[in-house]
Amino acid sequence: MPHKHNFGAGPCILPQEVFDQAAQAVLSWGDTGLSILEISHRTPEFESVVAESVQLIKELMQVPDGYDVIFVQGGASLQFGMLPMNLLNEEESAAYLDTGVWSNKAWKEAKLFGNVNVVASSKDANYTFIPKDYQIPTDAKYFHCTSNNTIYGTQMQSFPKSPVSMVCDMSSDILSREINIADFDLIYAGAQKNIGPAGNTVVILKSEILGKVNRKITSMLDYRIHIEGGSMYNTPPVFAIYVAMLNLRWLKKQGGVKEMERRNVEKANLLYAEIDRNTMFKGTCAIEDRSKMNICFVMNDASFEKEFLQMAEAVGCVGLKGHRSVGGFRASMYNALPLASVQVLVDTMKNFEALKK
Amino acid sequence: MPHKHNFGAGPCILPQEVFDQAAQAVLSWGDTGLSILEISHRTPEFESVVAESVQLIKELMQVPDGYDVIFVQGGASLQFGMLPMNLLNEEESAAYLDTGVWSNKAWKEAKLFGNVNVVASSKDANYTFIPKDYQIPTDAKYFHCTSNNTIYGTQMQSFPKSPVSMVCDMSSDILSREINIADFDLIYAGAQKNIGPAGNTVVILKSEILGKVNRKITSMLDYRIHIEGGSMYNTPPVFAIYVAMLNLRWLKKQGGVKEMERRNVEKANLLYAEIDRNTMFKGTCAIEDRSKMNICFVMNDASFEKEFLQMAEAVGCVGLKGHRSVGGFRASMYNALPLASVQVLVDTMKNFEALKK
Repeated sequence: MPHKHNFGAGPCILPQEVFDQAAQAVLSWGDTGLSILEISHRTPEFESVVAESVQLIKELMQVPDGYDVIFVQGGASLQFGMLPMNLLNEEESAAYLDTGVWSNKAWKEAKLFGNVNVVASSKDANYTFIPKDYQIPTDAKYFHCTSNNTIYGTQMQSFPKSPVSMVCDMSSDILSREINIADFDLIYAGAQKNIGPAGNTVVILKSEILGKVNRKITSMLDYRIHIEGGSMYNTPPVFAIYVAMLNLRWLKKQGGVKEMERRNVEKANLLYAEIDRNTMFKGTCAIEDRSKMNICFVMNDASFEKEFLQMAEAVGCVGLKGHRSVGGFRASMYNALPLASVQVLVDTMKNFEALKK
Repeated sequence: MPHKHNFGAGPCILPQEVFDQAAQAVLSWGDTGLSILEISHRTPEFESVVAESVQLIKELMQVPDGYDVIFVQGGASLQFGMLPMNLLNEEESAAYLDTGVWSNKAWKEAKLFGNVNVVASSKDANYTFIPKDYQIPTDAKYFHCTSNNTIYGTQMQSFPKSPVSMVCDMSSDILSREINIADFDLIYAGAQKNIGPAGNTVVILKSEILGKVNRKITSMLDYRIHIEGGSMYNTPPVFAIYVAMLNLRWLKKQGGVKEMERRNVEKANLLYAEIDRNTMFKGTCAIEDRSKMNICFVMNDASFEKEFLQMAEAVGCVGLKGHRSVGGFRASMYNALPLASVQVLVDTMKNFEALKK
């Protein structure tokens, strides 16, 4: 069966060579005589997988000195609670920018631990734009934002200068574009978009921000424990980290984050140009906030949507159905999605228009 | 390269057919035209993986009505904190049986949330036996025990009748022997022994015990959220759950837990008999508490240990080095380890004895 054009929002497509290498390691990993699924995390072989994965993230994202990179479990959703648990005392306040369902969940979890100041929200406009006119209070413990909003197809094209610690959920666009890590104090990302399979979460943080809250923190939710343990305080998600390493190696070989950004711009330009040109389709969010990872669009006549989706599926495009809160279509175009897949989608849009003329 | 005899303590050996099927799914899963690593967890295909995995656990463990089975992340170590967070108010007390490093960690985490009454401990004897002479206080919120102690090679052969809710960490012997689930209110187990790859945790619980604490619980640590979400409140560890399903299918096909228990008894008897017969080796813990999953033994003359380990490695036995807190050797013999592997180890012990005579 030919491989599909996977426009799914995540877990998402990874490079074919990563699938090939991962499958081989499930059968027999290197010269261990064992499957990667049965290897002890305490073996030198796996310890070097963790070390290389951390090193590749540091290198690819140009992480400056003073930052730690750790792998934890539980996805961004666990970070929504773990973050304020580690950084926010009950009487203190944190500032949140509300740009979608995930940032909304993030600040609601933070309210369990302290005060939350939502500095701006585009919720009333169904999150179709990124608010820009807001002040970050200087007495906030930290400012939290979501760099890319998977559901709504918006993306922060730049980040505000924050007078307080800057925290960012980069789950859906990490490693897709160059970022100045020094502008952030803590970045977290569920792995299942541009890092690797689901079940792994990357946190990049300045350890100097830790140890300032007065609550007791259960060990597994204490960032310091994971830093001290080198992401091996307990059994880590071995396979998910291994495949992340394979994917990071691929990314480096392709030319790194700079090259990923070039490709992502090229792919996004191709699809947005067609959305804007094609008389049957239109984008759903503010043009200046358009995401290069998740492209949301609808049809001028919604009654055609089912038929178009079938036509796209017939040529191998999957994962295009839009989230129920936006409707229409969402083409997620993470690092590993080839330009050729986007071209297939664009051609289908053209063909559909011609068919209906 | 021939497959090794994997005596590792975990992540551990899984059946060869599970490795084969998992590798195939990494390349192309069923008729999806996608890798299992890129499939959305919201597809009907993956939803049925979760449903089947839950169903297989219920069937294989004969889980009665009134219990939920959920998959979470973070391993047993996260459960050490999550459990008291959900069950224990600050002024209340929980009873713990201290039988090893993991139960010790469990009660230390519980102390962050309420009072802990350690009803008995074998710590002073380096955990070489399971204490049996203790009372479970009737005012405890729950009683917690660890069914099998991976590091020390002891196992609870029976469980006390508890006057309060019974909680058990079964990480290292779940599905290895028949258990009466009705005797327990909550069972948890990191997946990486008899369930599947690392990165998944199974919790079997009576939902009626929940909702009785007055603290705020962050969503990802609230059992009720995972029950409501059908283990899909957020992106689950897709691949780890998929491989668990393959392994549970294998287990069912082999004859279920009853047959696993028969094989595990047979394997354990074979090795313990040799430990007790062979003049060069001896067991490390109380005979009545000997584990059928992790068999710890040392040499009467420790200076031979390195040489024996090399001889065992030469015939393909790996993962035999004992934990640093016990020394010597530990042969972990989880469900998927064939009797033939145990025979290779036993033969090596015999050969070593003959060599040194």
